[in-house]
Amino acid sequence: MAWQDAIIDNGVSDWRIGQVEYVKNAWYVAGWASEFGDELRRVLILEENLLMFRATTGQVIALEDRCPHRQLPLSMGKRIGDEVQCGYHGMTFDCTGKCVRVPGQAGVPAQAVVESYQIHEKHGIVWVWMGDQEKADPNDVFDMAELQDPQWCAHQGDQLYLKSNYLNVAENLVDPAHVSFVHSTTLGSPASEDVPVQFDTKADPLVAWRWIRNAPPVGFFQEFGGFTGNVDRWHYYYLHTPCTAVIDFGSADSSLALSDEDRDQGVRIFALHFMTPLDAEHTIDRWMHVRNTAIGDNAVSKKMDELFRIAFGEDKIILEAVQVEENRPSKRPPVRIGIDKAPNVYRRRIERLIAAEQKTERIAAQ
Amino acid sequence: MAWQDAIIDNGVSDWRIGQVEYVKNAWYVAGWASEFGDELRRVLILEENLLMFRATTGQVIALEDRCPHRQLPLSMGKRIGDEVQCGYHGMTFDCTGKCVRVPGQAGVPAQAVVESYQIHEKHGIVWVWMGDQEKADPNDVFDMAELQDPQWCAHQGDQLYLKSNYLNVAENLVDPAHVSFVHSTTLGSPASEDVPVQFDTKADPLVAWRWIRNAPPVGFFQEFGGFTGNVDRWHYYYLHTPCTAVIDFGSADSSLALSDEDRDQGVRIFALHFMTPLDAEHTIDRWMHVRNTAIGDNAVSKKMDELFRIAFGEDKIILEAVQVEENRPSKRPPVRIGIDKAPNVYRRRIERLIAAEQKTERIAAQ
Amino acid sequence: MAWQDAIIDNGVSDWRIGQVEYVKNAWYVAGWASEFGDELRRVLILEENLLMFRATTGQVIALEDRCPHRQLPLSMGKRIGDEVQCGYHGMTFDCTGKCVRVPGQAGVPAQAVVESYQIHEKHGIVWVWMGDQEKADPNDVFDMAELQDPQWCAHQGDQLYLKSNYLNVAENLVDPAHVSFVHSTTLGSPASEDVPVQFDTKADPLVAWRWIRNAPPVGFFQEFGGFTGNVDRWHYYYLHTPCTAVIDFGSADSSLALSDEDRDQGVRIFALHFMTPLDAEHTIDRWMHVRNTAIGDNAVSKKMDELFRIAFGEDKIILEAVQVEENRPSKRPPVRIGIDKAPNVYRRRIERLIAAEQKTERIAAQ
Repeated sequence: MAWQDAIIDNGVSDWRIGQVEYVKNAWYVAGWASEFGDELRRVLILEENLLMFRATTGQVIALEDRCPHRQLPLSMGKRIGDEVQCGYHGMTFDCTGKCVRVPGQAGVPAQAVVESYQIHEKHGIVWVWMGDQEKADPNDVFDMAELQDPQWCAHQGDQLYLKSNYLNVAENLVDPAHVSFVHSTTLGSPASEDVPVQFDTKADPLVAWRWIRNAPPVGFFQEFGGFTGNVDRWHYYYLHTPCTAVIDFGSADSSLALSDEDRDQGVRIFALHFMTPLDAEHTIDRWMHVRNTAIGDNAVSKKMDELFRIAFGEDKIILEAVQVEENRPSKRPPVRIGIDKAPNVYRRRIERLIAAEQKTERIAAQ
Repeated sequence: MAWQDAIIDNGVSDWRIGQVEYVKNAWYVAGWASEFGDELRRVLILEENLLMFRATTGQVIALEDRCPHRQLPLSMGKRIGDEVQCGYHGMTFDCTGKCVRVPGQAGVPAQAVVESYQIHEKHGIVWVWMGDQEKADPNDVFDMAELQDPQWCAHQGDQLYLKSNYLNVAENLVDPAHVSFVHSTTLGSPASEDVPVQFDTKADPLVAWRWIRNAPPVGFFQEFGGFTGNVDRWHYYYLHTPCTAVIDFGSADSSLALSDEDRDQGVRIFALHFMTPLDAEHTIDRWMHVRNTAIGDNAVSKKMDELFRIAFGEDKIILEAVQVEENRPSKRPPVRIGIDKAPNVYRRRIERLIAAEQKTERIAAQ
Repeated sequence: MAWQDAIIDNGVSDWRIGQVEYVKNAWYVAGWASEFGDELRRVLILEENLLMFRATTGQVIALEDRCPHRQLPLSMGKRIGDEVQCGYHGMTFDCTGKCVRVPGQAGVPAQAVVESYQIHEKHGIVWVWMGDQEKADPNDVFDMAELQDPQWCAHQGDQLYLKSNYLNVAENLVDPAHVSFVHSTTLGSPASEDVPVQFDTKADPLVAWRWIRNAPPVGFFQEFGGFTGNVDRWHYYYLHTPCTAVIDFGSADSSLALSDEDRDQGVRIFALHFMTPLDAEHTIDRWMHVRNTAIGDNAVSKKMDELFRIAFGEDKIILEAVQVEENRPSKRPPVRIGIDKAPNVYRRRIERLIAAEQKTERIAAQ
């Protein structure tokens, strides 16, 4: 469906607020690899608290962060080798979550266990599997050839804390149209306001994109591309279900008249967003960037961080205001417009995945 | 019914807390005229957020402050002439609330509208009609001859923010008896403690009043009346349903033995209170004063502001403590006493108005 | 049941969180005697606000802290002799809670009363009876011979505010096992980690205890016992239903091989804890200590305060973290282990008392 044919879709089933749920059978980013060391750390993901640390083997461990006895967070206890001792009565758990010691008594109750979570570390990112642990497959962890390609330069940015549900964050990341208004002085410009958005919503990731041809370079590419004359600029948004987005954007001299396939010939930057839902109203967006220019130049990386920090701070203001508004009563369903094509498909996809997981759980419980 | 005959009225139907509702078909004060200029302003009234600004015509505009697309407050967007552009995707609305532009697509969905509210500006006060817009009649806006009479001096005071439901604020403003205890050093004195309150509850406004004859002048009239000997002091409380109160109080030398009709011969002051319910537990009380002494003397106006600020701050402490208490569970209905005559009538009047409005809405919905 | 035989008891009926109730027919500590003087004071106990002050007779008075008219806390009013005048309209109450004056009218409504509570003051502690006032018996107030014995030295410590329900606080005070882990550098040491706890749960108080024989003195007894060689150390925890705990702990030279009955021959200290439940998630723990050493030496009293302050601050951190955790959803009931014997009995005892009181109330209401 092209944007021109867009109709209002009020049939979307989620306009009632405050009932956010999560796809559990998925890899979520628990943190950058550098966030995990010897110390016990408490990490909130999908409303569950995890105790995380790096074992002597180098492997990152994730356990349920609550002693099954008196409910004290195990992260308030202490590490003894690769075991964790509760700070209240000394019950001690190994890396699999099994209790191996109850001080003052000989036996250990069979129920004295905490959940443990599969972890996979790749490209300096620690992923955790939040659902059925038997379904965790490291082959499903997000990857991208450019993260290891010497002709590209990858750099980790911040972890941005948002008082917003993850669905709105994700939808913002498959939405090129907001750039003209939210980022009018950083990533966008008024030149793009009326340029149609195109979509491919058949596969995963969802894709939404547009080219702004033959316009002055926006601030970002004045800074990093050194452009002075008019450029062709593209914004490709790839949203991988449930919580990873890759924004491919770049500019090239308009005289080159680049096609979709030739984007590597321009100054091309990928902004990667790994969203971690904390609870119904809070999300962490860890972002990084990968570029085909100024390879190995750390000053450029830092400068790029600064500009992204400003731009993503612009999104934060919008998304947090929307969250406040969604928490208030609503008189009627929201209006949907042409640019919502990919966000609408995303939300229905999430709904279907959650419904399927819940059905499986109900069957298993019978 | 005179105060002496007052009986305890436990039949009042509202003693259960936390279910505050509002009369919608009424003019409420949205602000002093000086509060509205070019900039977009968010204003909360009856739990609804309004976007308000002064158009190039000079007319104050009030729209629903929420974009129907992604729920962003329109007040976070920007003004383009007399239209307002949403800060998220640029949807643009005119002064009637109609969407006139959806960037990136040709058509505008019919549902893309926000509510607009009737506004009436008079005597430097901006009133808004919160209910059925077809029922708004500017002739119903509160007025008072003294506001334009050169023999009187009107002066706008503060907007006092109260963590209290509006019903308790209103009842405090048809209650002369509290003055002896809450304002014992400012507007009242112990001399009045046992003076009966009189009522006229047949019409709107409700009236409650008493005279304290032949007593030393209270602080306020020592300051502004220059009285040294004993005075006759009156307190007349007029409460207009739902949210406007006029307190007429003054003093005159006791030797004059003024009657009700002769109050203009004394030093007479009207304190006007315009209550704007924000939500179930918050109210703004905009107050001003009108006097028949020291006409045009701004120093006196300022000095009067200061004394009122102290006195109304005394009410604020009481009303906010009562709100906290009303939010806690109650074991039994409150006791009602003689001085509650007018407050009781007020509350039943409000209840009846709300019930009638809800009945009309139910019929309309069928 | 000896600790070795301990089994997991998942049958405990209270593992669902957030429904804390209280035994009402019991004496609770309202404060140290020194906390009450002429001024009106608001005191929260079992979710009820009390107005308390010391009358001219010296007797401490406790009334319901809410005017039955407009719900203003009476503690915001003023004292006139031994009567209390509401700060809103001057309704005045005597020490029994009876209204004796309604300014502006002749009669006083029969319903114009506030509840009054029985008070008993002993050993510098003010106790209040929160339930059926006819059942209050001063003979039931906690007592202990050492509080008046010249061979013992009693000293009041702090009132420790805990963001924790009282049940968890109480259970911590009949639990010697946590000392090895929570107080490892103050009251305990690793030497005790695996020493079994013994119980006597037949009568009230519940008792839980253990001896740690022939071990180095812990910090506390290095400081106050002057021990250098190995000592026998005991911890006896007595928990009186519902909210008083006495911890009897001490040390003696191991060569003496003290028996249970000979504890007075060692350096013996009682730490008394008077728990006052404020609401479902907040408790005040007023603690004091009584010792058989350094009688009358105030410097030692102060020094002991300091060490207890540190130790009880360690409990506070644990208990508040557990409260936060209990407020979150739980996937399964907690595991119970051998050392939970006395806490489990305590909780069932409380449950039975509450159930019995509620049954009596239901019968009375019929």
